Amino acid sequence: MSAVVCLSGGVGGAKLLLGLQRILPAGELTAIINTGDDFDHLGLRICPDIDTALYTLAGLANPELGWGRRDETWTFMQTLEQLGGETWFRLGDGDLALHIERTRRLGDGQLLDSITRVIAATLGIATTVVPMTNDAVRTRVMTDLGELDFQHYFVRLRCEPALQSCRFVGAETATITSAASAALTQSPRAIVIAPSNPYLSIDPILALPGMRELLRASGAPVIAVTPLIGGNAVKGPTAKIMRELKREISPLAIAEHYRGLVDGFVLDECDSALAAQLAIPCAITNTLMRSLADRERVADVALEFADSLRARGAR
Amino acid sequence: MSAVVCLSGGVGGAKLLLGLQRILPAGELTAIINTGDDFDHLGLRICPDIDTALYTLAGLANPELGWGRRDETWTFMQTLEQLGGETWFRLGDGDLALHIERTRRLGDGQLLDSITRVIAATLGIATTVVPMTNDAVRTRVMTDLGELDFQHYFVRLRCEPALQSCRFVGAETATITSAASAALTQSPRAIVIAPSNPYLSIDPILALPGMRELLRASGAPVIAVTPLIGGNAVKGPTAKIMRELKREISPLAIAEHYRGLVDGFVLDECDSALAAQLAIPCAITNTLMRSLADRERVADVALEFADSLRARGAR
Repeated sequence: MSAVVCLSGGVGGAKLLLGLQRILPAGELTAIINTGDDFDHLGLRICPDIDTALYTLAGLANPELGWGRRDETWTFMQTLEQLGGETWFRLGDGDLALHIERTRRLGDGQLLDSITRVIAATLGIATTVVPMTNDAVRTRVMTDLGELDFQHYFVRLRCEPALQSCRFVGAETATITSAASAALTQSPRAIVIAPSNPYLSIDPILALPGMRELLRASGAPVIAVTPLIGGNAVKGPTAKIMRELKREISPLAIAEHYRGLVDGFVLDECDSALAAQLAIPCAITNTLMRSLADRERVADVALEFADSLRARGAR
Repeated sequence: MSAVVCLSGGVGGAKLLLGLQRILPAGELTAIINTGDDFDHLGLRICPDIDTALYTLAGLANPELGWGRRDETWTFMQTLEQLGGETWFRLGDGDLALHIERTRRLGDGQLLDSITRVIAATLGIATTVVPMTNDAVRTRVMTDLGELDFQHYFVRLRCEPALQSCRFVGAETATITSAASAALTQSPRAIVIAPSNPYLSIDPILALPGMRELLRASGAPVIAVTPLIGGNAVKGPTAKIMRELKREISPLAIAEHYRGLVDGFVLDECDSALAAQLAIPCAITNTLMRSLADRERVADVALEFADSLRARGAR
């Protein structure tokens, strides 16, 4: 009952993953990562959320960009532009190595989970980083410009079209990876839903057949950490999307979105006045993760909160 | 009758191509390039001889390495090594852009000749650069270590195994590209066989069904420029291979190799004593192409020689 499982998407989620990795003994964290953002581009399989998790957990993430690798060079992209290639999705020279190596291994018949495991081990990552599925699940967003591939909407159009709905093509027949199932069924200490975008990053994970049931049957307290602070997302389009989906831009709406799934909610301290309106127990802390100490603190608060819920029999 | 056609392989051939391009009016040179060296590596189609021609003719070639691009960075390769990927074939970050863009276009169903034409145009190259065929022809070398893929022998093993014979898998059913055929049938002024390795770079071109007949039927003088100077190749394994094939390491053996195909032979001045032993007319010059002026001079000698053969009625 020592292991912790975290469901995570992109940058915000990876920050909490790093905090959890730093406070937990090696090997006790399993990160189940959204693959709905994955796409094929320039003949390469790109898995943005897996890569953000890997780079962040390996200490290789680019602190300025918030994506990609630190100490990156851009010769490939500059040359591709000169050749008239597609350059709207920025790929650094070092980043390319991961995409090319993964694509090569997929072409050899290896599965995404085992490729990710090998790469994580090569990078010396203590966390078990697991794609939610080996099957193709592709997030498509219905917008005022029609239905778009996720990265076309998210990167190429910078989330500018108004979002009306999302669907996760392939999710209904996708199988949860065995390491993800195993982590959820082996009596975890806690399950944490990272402060990732609920609609774009967490919902694809929850859309997999059996995932909600595994979370509920795990016996572990399920804690969500708010991705909203004082009515704004720290990064990314969460608030904009909530407006377009006509949700109240409030942590309460996030908690409502996860109703029936989570046992506790971590609110930001600047939203503490909302605590009384939550239908479930909450913990309050500064959830803004600027420093490594911040990441560790939020991770610590989430786990202590989970432990307290278990002790109280709230789960 | 103004156009010139040059059959070429790698670095030595590209030097002469550049000389020809510089002395000819724009658009009057067609380079038919060996594709027997092409291979699939890391999921990418690599065409080393086409790339050397493109980079050289665009002024982008790396003068120190003799292959790849100038002002190159190597972050991809360093990162791939950290990920445990295959690094024996060195791919620079900018070079990768060409491989990825070509592979993407091939995946879209475009043919190698049209991809090459588009890229050459994008790079502002005045020469018509044409792969010998769009079909897969793969050079395989029989050695004392058994039969090897060409790049495995050439790059990975640095030509160290003793070569016994070559075969060009797929050549017997490959079709000459239409631009190559057209250039050879539209009454060229001259056809030049570049000082590339005869066995590894030129023979694959000559192995295509109909190629020898097109050369002979062209009505143009066919000139070969020696790849050997004083018993040595300027670069590459030509002399080593001739020893292994039990040929005399002499321009005479090269001329013999091309017997029945070439009308004239350009000898290096340090081998001028051999002129009398040649069965065909020869021109003599310093064939070592260090400077741009050298490249232009050798090109000029070859074309003047061709014109003189035509005037003499030797062709």
